[in-house]
Amino acid sequence: MCGPEQQRWLRAHLRELKGYVPGAQPGPQAIKLNTNENPFPPSPAVMSALAEITPRSLQRYPDPMANGFRQAAARLHRLEPDQIIATNGGDELLRLAVTSFVDPGHAIGVITPGYGVYSVLSAIHQARLSPVPLGPDWDLPVDTAARWNADGAQLALISNPHAPSGALFSLQAIERLAETFEGVLLIDEAYADFIDPELDHDATQLVARHPKVLLLRTLSKGYALAGLRLAYGLGQAALLAPMLQKTKDAYNVDAIAQTLGKAALNDSAYAKSTWVKIRRERVRLSRDLEELGLEVAPSQTNFVLASLPPPSRWGSARNLHMELHDTNIHVRWFDEERLRDRLRISVGTHAENTAFVDTLRILQQQARPHLRRPAHRSTGTAIR
Amino acid sequence: MCGPEQQRWLRAHLRELKGYVPGAQPGPQAIKLNTNENPFPPSPAVMSALAEITPRSLQRYPDPMANGFRQAAARLHRLEPDQIIATNGGDELLRLAVTSFVDPGHAIGVITPGYGVYSVLSAIHQARLSPVPLGPDWDLPVDTAARWNADGAQLALISNPHAPSGALFSLQAIERLAETFEGVLLIDEAYADFIDPELDHDATQLVARHPKVLLLRTLSKGYALAGLRLAYGLGQAALLAPMLQKTKDAYNVDAIAQTLGKAALNDSAYAKSTWVKIRRERVRLSRDLEELGLEVAPSQTNFVLASLPPPSRWGSARNLHMELHDTNIHVRWFDEERLRDRLRISVGTHAENTAFVDTLRILQQQARPHLRRPAHRSTGTAIR
Repeated sequence: MCGPEQQRWLRAHLRELKGYVPGAQPGPQAIKLNTNENPFPPSPAVMSALAEITPRSLQRYPDPMANGFRQAAARLHRLEPDQIIATNGGDELLRLAVTSFVDPGHAIGVITPGYGVYSVLSAIHQARLSPVPLGPDWDLPVDTAARWNADGAQLALISNPHAPSGALFSLQAIERLAETFEGVLLIDEAYADFIDPELDHDATQLVARHPKVLLLRTLSKGYALAGLRLAYGLGQAALLAPMLQKTKDAYNVDAIAQTLGKAALNDSAYAKSTWVKIRRERVRLSRDLEELGLEVAPSQTNFVLASLPPPSRWGSARNLHMELHDTNIHVRWFDEERLRDRLRISVGTHAENTAFVDTLRILQQQARPHLRRPAHRSTGTAIR
Repeated sequence: MCGPEQQRWLRAHLRELKGYVPGAQPGPQAIKLNTNENPFPPSPAVMSALAEITPRSLQRYPDPMANGFRQAAARLHRLEPDQIIATNGGDELLRLAVTSFVDPGHAIGVITPGYGVYSVLSAIHQARLSPVPLGPDWDLPVDTAARWNADGAQLALISNPHAPSGALFSLQAIERLAETFEGVLLIDEAYADFIDPELDHDATQLVARHPKVLLLRTLSKGYALAGLRLAYGLGQAALLAPMLQKTKDAYNVDAIAQTLGKAALNDSAYAKSTWVKIRRERVRLSRDLEELGLEVAPSQTNFVLASLPPPSRWGSARNLHMELHDTNIHVRWFDEERLRDRLRISVGTHAENTAFVDTLRILQQQARPHLRRPAHRSTGTAIR
């Protein structure tokens, strides 16, 4: 992409780096099950707060600390406001953790497969990855922390529930990591809102006990506000302080996001009602896919990872991904180890999931393998 | 701020680093002349665009490239959309330039005094500063580029018009820098909208001629949208490409900012009408301050830098800053070389400027130096 001339000024290690490529954003008519958005709109309280935005609040710089939003988040999680940091989407918190806790040349612990942004951030920062492959059932190896420690990792980035498998690592497993790993442990809980409440999985209790545990929560998925770019970190005040006071951009979260985010968290009852529907649809979608012959990993998120049976009437997962694309149904395929025979499908509305399953069935019946196109138009890339 | 325990995990060079401290945000009743916001509200077209924001646009991830906004900016500057990058405020573009073009340990060229964020970003990145002090009349030394080159600077960050002096470096001087400096030259034009049109100063023409010139524009000041966090860079496509595709966070600008920013640029006639008023008030405010005995540097921005006469009835600039604060009038004082005897005053509305000057006059008449408080409550810090 860079002309030969400008390459000269770009840092050498960035010249060959491949950036993170986000999922496609098709038009409004599409059935969009590719980027794990909430299929339901945000709370009416958010839209009311939007209608109240004044010219003056746009004219003036926003609160650099986002205190109103932090108070709302603290109330929700029964923590203190200084145990919260608001960020411009979850990606900013990931980047701040790398900037604050990792020296170039040192290692960042990850599990594989995982969210593609982790490795891109590491590469930009000239850190090394310390990758630990998940077990056959997407289980966390017991020696994960030991392996990160052996590599001298200063920070570990791990999503729980895990993307893209949907698996949930138990609180006990996470706490063992926190106790054993010698660096800062960032648990990316982007999908935590979708965990079955019966599992009673509440990682926020780890904050009080562990001075170097950092949790990431986002309003993108659970609160249907992906367009707003608002997430937050939870951790002990002394862990967050350098990010709040030193490494974040001064005004990192805009005035509208602060106001709408606060309204969203204050009406979490509404968001919860969407999570109930999504969990119910997750069960139904998984069952329907299994009836069609796919294997579906147990999911505690708002997506499912489904693998095609080896001799499949749809051909390869990549092929199916493209055929679905041609019917304006968008799911995610990753050109990555352990994922090439799978599709990641966001849980949509009842109607969207039904349309998706019906289309799968039709494609299965129509399947004429000899007419299948060569796989030249991949959009499979890194993960979220 | 960091407890002894958490300091262990913080990168060593960040432990003593002092972050950028933004200007205070007092309550709505204050006369706020301290952070260079536009004293007039944003365009009605912006508020109309805000009223049109749909739940769906919040629910979905935004356009990662902000193409609608980039097209509007390209039209305005008669450039191509791929010569524009949209960022979450100007600070993000500054940070991306550092991340993309500077290797830790290498130098970043700056002029002093200057915007405090430049040195904080450099320190976070473990870069060295190559500072060139401005001349006695805030003029740019002719050997500036040569000195940066001698230090091996890979990037230079320079504001023009200059903050906090308000001085404008000529296009010829800037072009000489661009020709002579061997690294990437970022010209922070945060205040360019306030330049007298008669000066015919248009740096965007440099983009076509110079493959490593990067201009920064913001909607915070000229377009009265500081609360929105939206700025953009202008440069040759190959210079911007690595920031767009590699080093920026994937979804760095939210959906609302993209929509409102486009509306603002498309109604630049409205913004221009506020610039005319601000320039007129800049002349009046400067004259009034000079009549009170202050010395005012010629300004092409929406602020003026005024120095107190050495034996002043107001006492020190720091003292006057605090006395004004007690009357709920907020201006900026910097505890920095060449600035300690000065105040930076944003140009407000006619009524605000009048109230400020009237208060200065009253304080001058009331001045009782022996009652003056010790200077214990400084808010003077780094610059913007």
